[in-house]
Amino acid sequence: MAQAKESRADQLLETATLLFKEKGYHNTSMQDLADALGMQKGSLYYYIDSKEELLRELLEQATSILGAQIDEIYAADLSPGEKLQRALENHGQAIMDHLNLVTVYLQEYRSLPPERLQEALATREHYERRLMQILQDGIASGQFRQVDVKMTVFGFLGMLNWTHQWFSPEGELTSGEIAVILADLAMQAVSVNPET
Amino acid sequence: MAQAKESRADQLLETATLLFKEKGYHNTSMQDLADALGMQKGSLYYYIDSKEELLRELLEQATSILGAQIDEIYAADLSPGEKLQRALENHGQAIMDHLNLVTVYLQEYRSLPPERLQEALATREHYERRLMQILQDGIASGQFRQVDVKMTVFGFLGMLNWTHQWFSPEGELTSGEIAVILADLAMQAVSVNPET
Repeated sequence: MAQAKESRADQLLETATLLFKEKGYHNTSMQDLADALGMQKGSLYYYIDSKEELLRELLEQATSILGAQIDEIYAADLSPGEKLQRALENHGQAIMDHLNLVTVYLQEYRSLPPERLQEALATREHYERRLMQILQDGIASGQFRQVDVKMTVFGFLGMLNWTHQWFSPEGELTSGEIAVILADLAMQAVSVNPET
Repeated sequence: MAQAKESRADQLLETATLLFKEKGYHNTSMQDLADALGMQKGSLYYYIDSKEELLRELLEQATSILGAQIDEIYAADLSPGEKLQRALENHGQAIMDHLNLVTVYLQEYRSLPPERLQEALATREHYERRLMQILQDGIASGQFRQVDVKMTVFGFLGMLNWTHQWFSPEGELTSGEIAVILADLAMQAVSVNPET
């Protein structure tokens, strides 16, 4: 019974992700969701209190997937270069492995109610700050050249985030391979002694 | 009279850009446009035949701004490094200086009718191919290291395109300054003898 509820709830999140992505959050009704799942609208409320709760849950999922391990990586006994490479590879792979969820996140996070939006922005800023600290540490240790750390982090995240516009799971390279290539470009962009 | 028509037409394009950006192309009606412009709906047709023509015109504008000078740069008597830097700086600045238009382009180019979509995609591919050729030339001449030229171009364009998500004209740095910083990161990422 518990398992049936769980898999139904997962299915609900997955269907909501697809509908929000295609129609937008505001244009998707609980009725649309019920129809897509072949359920009675009333039964939906057994799983979820409101459409807003659904959006919140999806965006929390996205945030936790994208932010996973950043604190761990930052605290790890690794050089700034190793930390940066690991963080960027994780980020790129997470984007490409959760294309629908990431698209909803990017399109809809502004639809969150104000206090939740504040939380989401704070989580994102914490993540960006960690990356800036890693860059700063690498500059201090002489491993990285002097760069504008904020612009560099925004540039690198852009390179990785943009994959959601063009990555195809049916393409020649896997998400993991592409993440390695893009993280390598970023590493070369800031390293004092890049491989040639 | 001709001038009045022209400036009205410009105003129409600008207003359409804003409405398409905020409500989406499909959710914007000719009536919405007329209301926003304080015009009769019937008068709109003096300037434009259809909503579709409006979208086409906006997307052509975006394509021509983004693609401007790529053939010129490619054919110029410059090293591959100089060409790449110039092309990337142009691209970044064009994105940041036309945020609304670029957002509509990215959100709505799939709304074009099939034959126009084909044209738009062909223009984009031509642009990407030119950048790949510049990279390839630089690898052949020994100025750039061996990289996957396709992934590298997609990565660099992502870094620049993503600025439309975060750039603010009220921020500390101008679009021109940011374009130079990001193009420099890209140059360092591929150069065999980067500055340190």
